Amino acid sequence: MASGGTHSKAVLVSAEGHILAETDGPCTNHWLVGVDNCINGINDMVQRAKIKAGLDPDTPVCSLGMSLSGGEQKAAIQKLIDDMRERYPKLSQSYFITTDAIGAMATASDYGGIVVISGTGSNCKLVNPDGTQVGCGGWGHMMGDEGSAYWISHLAIKTVFDARDNLVTSPHDINYVKKAMEEYFQVSDLMGMLPHLYRIFQKSHFAGFCRKLAEGGSAGDALCQHVFTEAGKALARHIVAVLPRVHQDLFSGELGLPVLCVGSVWRSWELMKSGFTQVLSEAQAHGYGHFQKYSLLTLRQSSALGGAKMGAQNAGASLPLDYSANINVFFSHTFNQ
Amino acid sequence: MASGGTHSKAVLVSAEGHILAETDGPCTNHWLVGVDNCINGINDMVQRAKIKAGLDPDTPVCSLGMSLSGGEQKAAIQKLIDDMRERYPKLSQSYFITTDAIGAMATASDYGGIVVISGTGSNCKLVNPDGTQVGCGGWGHMMGDEGSAYWISHLAIKTVFDARDNLVTSPHDINYVKKAMEEYFQVSDLMGMLPHLYRIFQKSHFAGFCRKLAEGGSAGDALCQHVFTEAGKALARHIVAVLPRVHQDLFSGELGLPVLCVGSVWRSWELMKSGFTQVLSEAQAHGYGHFQKYSLLTLRQSSALGGAKMGAQNAGASLPLDYSANINVFFSHTFNQ
Repeated sequence: MASGGTHSKAVLVSAEGHILAETDGPCTNHWLVGVDNCINGINDMVQRAKIKAGLDPDTPVCSLGMSLSGGEQKAAIQKLIDDMRERYPKLSQSYFITTDAIGAMATASDYGGIVVISGTGSNCKLVNPDGTQVGCGGWGHMMGDEGSAYWISHLAIKTVFDARDNLVTSPHDINYVKKAMEEYFQVSDLMGMLPHLYRIFQKSHFAGFCRKLAEGGSAGDALCQHVFTEAGKALARHIVAVLPRVHQDLFSGELGLPVLCVGSVWRSWELMKSGFTQVLSEAQAHGYGHFQKYSLLTLRQSSALGGAKMGAQNAGASLPLDYSANINVFFSHTFNQ
Repeated sequence: MASGGTHSKAVLVSAEGHILAETDGPCTNHWLVGVDNCINGINDMVQRAKIKAGLDPDTPVCSLGMSLSGGEQKAAIQKLIDDMRERYPKLSQSYFITTDAIGAMATASDYGGIVVISGTGSNCKLVNPDGTQVGCGGWGHMMGDEGSAYWISHLAIKTVFDARDNLVTSPHDINYVKKAMEEYFQVSDLMGMLPHLYRIFQKSHFAGFCRKLAEGGSAGDALCQHVFTEAGKALARHIVAVLPRVHQDLFSGELGLPVLCVGSVWRSWELMKSGFTQVLSEAQAHGYGHFQKYSLLTLRQSSALGGAKMGAQNAGASLPLDYSANINVFFSHTFNQ
C-alpha cells in the first residue's frame, strides 16, 4: 500500500503480479495522524482489499509492502511494524516499509532515477543504478515542503498577508487570491484565518487551497501563475541539489536523466513549466557535462505496486512488473549544445 | 496582567498607581494554550497577587486590565471575558483586554509611538497621537513572526537542513549551530528533529534555542551572527511597513521617532544592530522627509502596568503613571542630512 499526506491506496497483488483489488483510505502519514490512526487506516484498507478480492480476511497476506510518506526514520518504522504485528496478527505474514519516493521509483523502474514528489508535501530522492540513495527535502511543512501544495497555498496566502501589512509588496494584484481564500476557508478577513493556521489547522485541508490557485492560474490570474512558477523553481532546485551525486549512467539512457514526478501538483505542470525549466537550464549551463537531456515521467499505476514489489522481495519472492506499462513520459528537454 | 508567548506577569496596582504585588505565570496566549488554560492561568496569577498583597482573594479587584499576546480578535476576546466572568466571579468587577503591544505602549507613553515586540513571537504596532493604530505582523509562527526568537531559531535550523540537503549553500560554516541544535534538542541527527517540529512541538521551547544562538553570536560564530543580523533587518522592515502611516508629530519629539522595543530578543541588540540600522537608513534615504531621527526604548516596568492603566480607564478610573520612570533609551540614531 502507499500513503500520501492526504490519501492512501492499497493494491492486493497475486504472485504473478496481477492486481486483484484496490482500496482507498485517508492519510496514513504517522507524523501527521499519529501511530494509532496510521495502523488502523492501513489494516482497514488491506482487510477491505482482501474481502473485495474474495479472500478470507482472517488469512494473512504473504507480504505487506508499504510505501509511506513519513516512512524514513528507522526506529519509528520498526515501532510501526511491531505495533501492527501485535494489534493485527491476521493482517500479513511479513512486513516491509519504505518511503513514498522509493515505492514510486520501484513502480517505474529497477534501474533508478530521480523521484520528485509534490502532493500535500514535497520530497526528492535520487536512486542510483547501484541502489544508493540521496535525498533532498521531505522534512514536512515546518522545515520545507518547498514546491508542494501546502507550500503553494502558504506562499499565496502569505503574499496576501504581507501586502495587507505593507511588509512586502506583492508582485501582482492580490484580489483574486484574497477572494478565493475567503471563499475556500469561509472567512471574511485575515483575522479569520488564524484558526485555520493554528487551532483547527489541517495540513491536507490547507494544502487543498492549491486547487483553487491552479484554477486561478489557468484562468489567467497573474499571482496564481506566479506561485506555481515559484513552485516549479523550488521543485527543480531539489533536482539540482542531488545532481552532483547522480551516477553518470543515469544520464545516458534514451530519455536522458529520468525524473519521476509523483503527486497531484504535477497536474499543474503547464503552470510550473517556465520556472522549472529555467532552474534546470541554469544549473546545466553551470557545468554538468553529462547532463544533456532530461525527461519527466508520471506513474500510470499507484506507487503501492512498487511497495508491494519491495515487500515481496523482502519476503524472498519476486513480483514481475511490466515497467514500461507503468510509466508515461510527459515532457522531454534536450539542452542546446 | 500581561502575557507573552512563554511567560505571563500580573501586577496588582493601588488607586494611586503603586505596585502592591507582582506574580508570574506560564504562557497565557489563548491561541497557543487554549481558552481554558488561558483563563485558569490568569485567575491563578491574579489570586496569588491578591494574597501576596495581603488582600482577601474572595474580594474582586476593581478592574482587571489584560495585555495579551494573541488579544486581537474581538469575538475571541469577548468570549474570554464572558468565560472569566462565569467561571471566576470573585476575580474582578470589570474586565478589559488589549494586545501585548498596546499594553506595552500604555506603560511607556500616552502620546504614542511604534512598538516592536520580539519575544517568542513578533509583532509591530504604530500608535499615533490621536490613538489610531496600524499593525504589521503578529500572525504567529505559521504566517510570520519574522525577527522573533522562534524565527531566529527556525532560520538557523533551516540553514543546517538546507546545507545537509545541498538545497541552499549556507553563507557560513554550520558546525557550531548544528552542534548547539543537537545539544539543545538532545538529538543525534536531523531526523531526530522531526518530533520537535511536529509531535512534541512547543513554540516556546523551539524559540528557546535562540538563547544558544545568541551565545554563539557573542562568542564570534559567523552563522549565529548572521541570523541575528537577518532578525534585525526583519524587525526594521516592520517599522518601515508602518512608516507611511506615522503622524508627523511623532517624528518631531526630542527622541525623534520613538520605537518601544519589547521582548527578550532585544537583549541581543548588539547582534541585530547592523541589520536593523541598515534597513532603516535605506528606507529613510528613499524619502521620508520628516524622519530625521529615531530612538529605541525599553520598558523598566512590566507592560502589565499599561494593561492595568487601560483596565482602570475602561472602568472609569485613572491610574497616574510616571512614564519617564518606566522607560529607558538604549539607542538613538540621527540620519545624515
